[in-house]
This record gives sequence, C-alpha cells and structure tokens, in this order.
Amino acid sequence: MTFRSALIVGAGHGLSAALARAFAKEGMAVALAARAPDKLARLAQDTGARTFECDATQRYDVDAVFAKLDEAGATPDVVVYNASYRTRGPLIDLDPVEVEKAIAVSAFGAFLVAQAAVRRMLPNRRGAVFFTGASAGVKGYAQSAPFAMGKFALRGLAQSMARELSPQGIHVAHVVVDGGIRSARRQEAPDKPDSLLDPDAIAQSYLHLLHQPRNAWSWELELRPWVENF
Amino acid sequence: MTFRSALIVGAGHGLSAALARAFAKEGMAVALAARAPDKLARLAQDTGARTFECDATQRYDVDAVFAKLDEAGATPDVVVYNASYRTRGPLIDLDPVEVEKAIAVSAFGAFLVAQAAVRRMLPNRRGAVFFTGASAGVKGYAQSAPFAMGKFALRGLAQSMARELSPQGIHVAHVVVDGGIRSARRQEAPDKPDSLLDPDAIAQSYLHLLHQPRNAWSWELELRPWVENF
Amino acid sequence: MTFRSALIVGAGHGLSAALARAFAKEGMAVALAARAPDKLARLAQDTGARTFECDATQRYDVDAVFAKLDEAGATPDVVVYNASYRTRGPLIDLDPVEVEKAIAVSAFGAFLVAQAAVRRMLPNRRGAVFFTGASAGVKGYAQSAPFAMGKFALRGLAQSMARELSPQGIHVAHVVVDGGIRSARRQEAPDKPDSLLDPDAIAQSYLHLLHQPRNAWSWELELRPWVENF
Amino acid sequence: MTFRSALIVGAGHGLSAALARAFAKEGMAVALAARAPDKLARLAQDTGARTFECDATQRYDVDAVFAKLDEAGATPDVVVYNASYRTRGPLIDLDPVEVEKAIAVSAFGAFLVAQAAVRRMLPNRRGAVFFTGASAGVKGYAQSAPFAMGKFALRGLAQSMARELSPQGIHVAHVVVDGGIRSARRQEAPDKPDSLLDPDAIAQSYLHLLHQPRNAWSWELELRPWVENF
Repeated sequence: MTFRSALIVGAGHGLSAALARAFAKEGMAVALAARAPDKLARLAQDTGARTFECDATQRYDVDAVFAKLDEAGATPDVVVYNASYRTRGPLIDLDPVEVEKAIAVSAFGAFLVAQAAVRRMLPNRRGAVFFTGASAGVKGYAQSAPFAMGKFALRGLAQSMARELSPQGIHVAHVVVDGGIRSARRQEAPDKPDSLLDPDAIAQSYLHLLHQPRNAWSWELELRPWVENF
Repeated sequence: MTFRSALIVGAGHGLSAALARAFAKEGMAVALAARAPDKLARLAQDTGARTFECDATQRYDVDAVFAKLDEAGATPDVVVYNASYRTRGPLIDLDPVEVEKAIAVSAFGAFLVAQAAVRRMLPNRRGAVFFTGASAGVKGYAQSAPFAMGKFALRGLAQSMARELSPQGIHVAHVVVDGGIRSARRQEAPDKPDSLLDPDAIAQSYLHLLHQPRNAWSWELELRPWVENF
Repeated sequence: MTFRSALIVGAGHGLSAALARAFAKEGMAVALAARAPDKLARLAQDTGARTFECDATQRYDVDAVFAKLDEAGATPDVVVYNASYRTRGPLIDLDPVEVEKAIAVSAFGAFLVAQAAVRRMLPNRRGAVFFTGASAGVKGYAQSAPFAMGKFALRGLAQSMARELSPQGIHVAHVVVDGGIRSARRQEAPDKPDSLLDPDAIAQSYLHLLHQPRNAWSWELELRPWVENF
Repeated sequence: MTFRSALIVGAGHGLSAALARAFAKEGMAVALAARAPDKLARLAQDTGARTFECDATQRYDVDAVFAKLDEAGATPDVVVYNASYRTRGPLIDLDPVEVEKAIAVSAFGAFLVAQAAVRRMLPNRRGAVFFTGASAGVKGYAQSAPFAMGKFALRGLAQSMARELSPQGIHVAHVVVDGGIRSARRQEAPDKPDSLLDPDAIAQSYLHLLHQPRNAWSWELELRPWVENF
C-alpha cells in the first residue's frame, strides 16, 4: 500500500521536520500545519511542503486546512498529530487556564484533526492517523498533572480510534516517545552518546508503521534511548 | 486516622448518595455539590448533608463551594470527585462541543476540585482525594472516544497526584468502576443476580480506602460484578 | 457471605502470621502450610491454627495438606498463596537451578495450591483464592529477572483464574505488595515513619477483599507505603 | 549497525522460517535450533542455515548449540526466542506436568537461551535478543492459565533484561503477536482477508527493530491483524 499525501500538525523543527523529510523522500506530498508557519519556510523549501497557519484547538482552523488540501487535490491519507503543550509544577500552583490549554493542545486538538482526517479516509477505507505520545501518557509523573492529563487523554483517543477504525481500514497508532529529542539547542553530553532521541530515527519508526501490511499492524510503539531509565 | 468532613462532587442518586450515607454513618459531616442540588433534598435530609449548586467545570463555582465550607468550619478532609459526562458514537459523528464537555466534566472539573481540596489539606499534611473512574479510563472502547479521553485524563491526573501528594500525607485514589451500577431505574435481570454493582458495596470499598493506614495505601482499585467480562 | 476455614500457604512470621491472626479473629479456622512449620508453633498456639509441612512446588505435598483438611472437616473456603523465592544479580551470573526454583516457588506452587483449592470450591460455587504478588509482577526490574519471571507468571495465573472462576462464584484476587514489610528484623528509620508496610495493615486489605459482595469484586489491589516511589 | 549472525530458537515452519529468510536476505548467517530439526532441511537449504537439535529447556542442549556456533566462528549477535508450549482447559482439569512444560518451554528456555546469548554479547557491548510473545502475555485469558503463566513470565524476563542490558548496548525486545499466524494449514476465510498475520510481515517488524539505532529503541511491539478484537 502506498500513501500519497501527508499532513503533519504541530509542526516544529524537531520531529515534525524529520517526518516531513522522510515522507517527502518516500515521494509523498507533504503539508505542515502550525501556529507559526513562517518558521517553517526553510523546511517547506527543502521538502516542497505546503504550510498552513492553524491553531489545532480551533475547529474552524482545522477544517480550513483540510478544505484547502481537498481543493488542492492533496487530501491527506496520512496524518500525524504532533502538537502538545505542557505546564509543570506542584498541583496547588498550577494555573487552571494553562491546564485547560495543556489538555486542549495535547488531546482535544488531536480529536479535531483526527475527525477531519477520518471523514476523508473512511470512504476509501484506507489511511493512517498517527499520534505522537509521551511517557507521560502511560505514567503520571509528580508535578506534571497537566501533561499527564493531556497525554493520557491522547492515548485514550488513539486506543478508542484503533479499536473502531482499524477494522475499517484505517491504521491508528500511538508512538510513545520516552526521552528527550535531539535538536539544535539540545545536544547530548559527549560522554553520553545517543542519550537523546534522533528525530530522524523516530521518523524511521513512523515510516515502518506506515509500511506495515494490515495483517500485522501495531497500534502502539515505545521509543527510548538505550540509556533511558524506564 | 479519622476524618471529619467529606465533600462529594457530582452528586446524584446512585454512588454519591451511597457515599453520603456511608460517610454520615461514620460520623462525618457531609457536603454535596451538584449542578441540580434540588434533587438532593431528600438525601440531604437523611444524611444532614449541606448541598451546593456547582458546575465543577467552572473555577469560580468550585472555589465558592470550598469557601462556604471554610466559613462553616467544615473544610473537607475527604473529597470524592464523582462527576462525568459521556457522549458516544462513531468518531466522525461526534459533536466537538460534546467532546469538550466530556473532557471538561470528567477530567478538568476533577482538577479544579482537587486543587481546591489539596490547598486546604496540605498545611495539615493529611486528607484524602478519591476519583471515581471507569473501565473506559484504562481501555479505550470503540465508538467511545470522548469518554475514553475524559476518563484516561482523570486517571492521569490521579496517578500524577498520587506520586506527588502521597509523600505529603494526602491519600489519592482512583476507583475503576467496571460495570453498570444498580439504581431505581436499572435493576438486574432475575436470572443474573449481582450483575450490577450495588452503590453501597462500592461505598464500602471507598470507606476501606479511607481507613487504610498510610503504610499500606492503594492508589487504584478496580471493582466489577463477578459475571462481568474484562 | 461468611467464610469458615482459611489455608495460608508459605506461612512465615510476617504477612502470613498477620493473616492468620486476622482470619482467626473473624472466627475462621486457620491452617498454615510451610516448609518449616516448627517455626510456627507459637503462632499456631495463638490462633489455634493447624500447621502442615509442605513444599508447595510438590504436587503430592500440596494434595496431602488438602486431604488432611478434608478429613478434619476443615476444607478451606479461603486460600492465600504467600510463598515466593527470589534470586538476584546480573543475568549472566544467575544460576539456572535458582531461576527454576524462583519460578517454581513463586508461580508453579501457586498453581498447584489453586487447583487443589478450586476443586473443592467449585461444587459449592463459592470461595476465595488470593495471591500475594509484588511490584516485580507488574514491572520487571534490572538484575531481578528470576523474581520478575515468577511474579509475572503468578499474576498471569491470577488474572486467568479471575476471568474463568469469578463467574463461577470464586473470588480470585492478586495483591501487589509494593514496598518492604515491617518485621522484627526490619524496622523503619525513626525519621521515616510508616515507610514499611505493616503486616496487619496488609491483612486488613485482604479481609476487605474477602468481605466484598460479589457484585463489586476487586481482582487486583496495590498496597504501598505513602513515601514509596512508584 | 550491522549484524552478522542470527540464531532462531524454536524454529518451525511459520514465523521462524520467515525470520530465517529475512535474516538471510540481509546477508546474515542463520542458525536454527529446534527439537526436531530434520523438518527444517528444506528451509536450511533455502537459507544456508545451520540447524541444531535442541531442547531449549535443557541447559546442556542450549550450551551445546552456542558452543558449536562459537567453534564455527558464528557466535550469534542476534538471537530470537520463538519457542512456546501451551495447554488449555478449565483450571481443575489441567495436568500439572503439562503446566510445568508450558512454563519451561515458554519462559525458562528463554532464560537459558538469553543467558548464553548475553554472555557472548556483553564483551562487545552489542547484540539483540528478541522474544516472541503473545497477547496471553499481557492478558490472562480464561481456561488458559498455563499459557498465561508462561507468556507473562517471558514478558517479565524481557522487561527485566531490557532494563538491565539496554544501557550495556544489547537491544532486548518483546514482540506481542496478537492473532493467528497464516500457515499452510491455516488460511483465512476468503471473506476475511488479512485476518491472519503473515509471517513475512511479522519478520519485517523484527527487522525494523534490528535496524533501530540505539537512541530510539523499542522494547515492546504489538502486532495484530486489522480486524482483530483487542
């Protein structure tokens, strides 16, 4: 099964950029939706990706991105939801507005994007919707209740969707990224090689999921550096 | 360790009523907060409970309830969050407004109530905050994404709080109710005795959690009828 | 539902003794089976318990204990499996004979005891079989493969039995004891009160499980000190 | 990172054959160890694989296979444990000898093979040990206690090893095969395409794990057909 068109939501410079490059290399048209898409100009140039300004927590923003892709004949058959927001601290010090935002960006936006995506995939009974999770989605850490709420909710969405939509031909997967991701600003210490996840390595696992035939699908995959405690 | 004053949020006629009776029987002052507290008149009479109108998803409603309890010298040392909201159906048919509500009532409201409760408990380094979960919080069922999101998020909140607050003397627990609850409207078939959970039986397990000494606390407890598939 | 007769297998001075006392206090006849039952003389005196020499990994030993209890009219309707054996160390240094023993004592013996118990309970469609697990049964720790194998296997047995036997009236539960247990030899530091589980506190949770009506059974319960990391 | 030499233990005609072909295609030397290796003649011819007679539950059998591979300069840097044994039925009808065998083949043999493998890998601080698990290793099904015990124990071994050995450069993974595997004897119904796992598809996921760079390792991967209930 080959895929033609990918949409990555929550696009930044790390994992989303690596995914964009990996998908483009596979010959797929790529679209990137982010709150500040001007940061993506270089990436768009490299990958030929369309970029869209989109607040994934806003239904009409999400719908508009999909409508434009429809018009362009680039309705995505692969969608990756990569946005998240966190706020940390002792429970009693958390700002409820920030908590709402953490849940909205990490989980509710994922629902909005998934719903728009699946509406387009179901008639063809094929497509892939992948969610970028975190270890916070399987383990609620102290002083991190908002992120736990958002990422647990995201995992609940993904698992419910996998049960509903897999038998309808849509591959739903939840990737648990457990560890820090290497970036321009965040490099591992020389004496701790490979202690941060390489975005390109993560992207290779997304590609593998995409290539799995439907008789052997994974709905969840954990990825962590060899030296990460878990 | 004895507790003096319990607040039950999301009070209806089933589990909340059973909890109110069980707590009152233990000699505790009981308060009930619900969106439509007039339905609780009879229960309030039976248990001597104070009742409050409260939309748990609204920060100021929640704060007001706690403020009134403070004034009355009935600041709760036991708080049970029992509210939830669900909407069901194929992912593509779900109303985003209802999805937001499911998350808000099932999880965000729990955060608001927990935060207000813990602020009052921490200075004494004692108290109990219990959340009523569901099997939907550990397993995302098909066509039930909103409830999965809400109840997974609730479990993430509870687990994060347990890790943060247990060492500060606050017992945080998440009770997974797996099965239907017996009520006036919902009775089990005569040939399937005990196939629905008795609210009083559930309440006994909450009481047991409350009585656990801090050297042997449970943070999670599943309850299901003997004949329930799981 | 009242229970008449309890058998505790793997009886030592800690949790088994606390269970024996708690069951005896409830008016139950108590039997203790252990490899070295002479150590149990004092406990037997205190609780009126019968004691049996039994290597739980040996089928004929197990059968003999049950046969003697049958003859004495004390066929147990409550059975607790409390035996375990561990060996630790880097994987490459482990002695295979010790690994086999860890699995045999922690899990295979549990099967033998459970089978003998359930054969006697099924005709009455009532009874309780409880297994003492450990955090090692839900999380495989480094340098502790043998205990992980034994305790994971025990949990698999318990979960399979719960699914099979709950609908036949037999309450199967697995108690995850996460933390050290207080004993004559092992006392908590004065500045870390309640950092070890009190055997009597654990026993109270076993009793609670025993008292749960069948419409609200728990199949698993975790217990840990307030200050335990998890 | 490239691997040179793979050993597959518990080799039959399904997954093991697919793995042998996939590894051989990657240019690796392949060895197959099974109780009845004469059945493997054709596969050995196709893949150039060495074959060994080996009862994986017998320490000296296991050691002999590794010793022969050492002598041949084909010490494996990839080992897959693929053996399992099951017996089913109501708990009270199970034959204890069969239960012991299920645990021994499914889990204790895995320990023996893993220990021999890791002893050879640790000096180089590289290698891969993969275990073929089953849904029975994460969920204990009714009337299937022996398989649950064996596969839970296998998962405990794998998780403990992953925690211990990943930071030493050895990739340990547990693949949860959830569903029936397609074979000459077992074909899916024409109206249920892809309802059985294709061994070659499973093998592709093992290869993917093998190719993961150490900064983004998976320790567990579930695979199931799109239409499988879970």
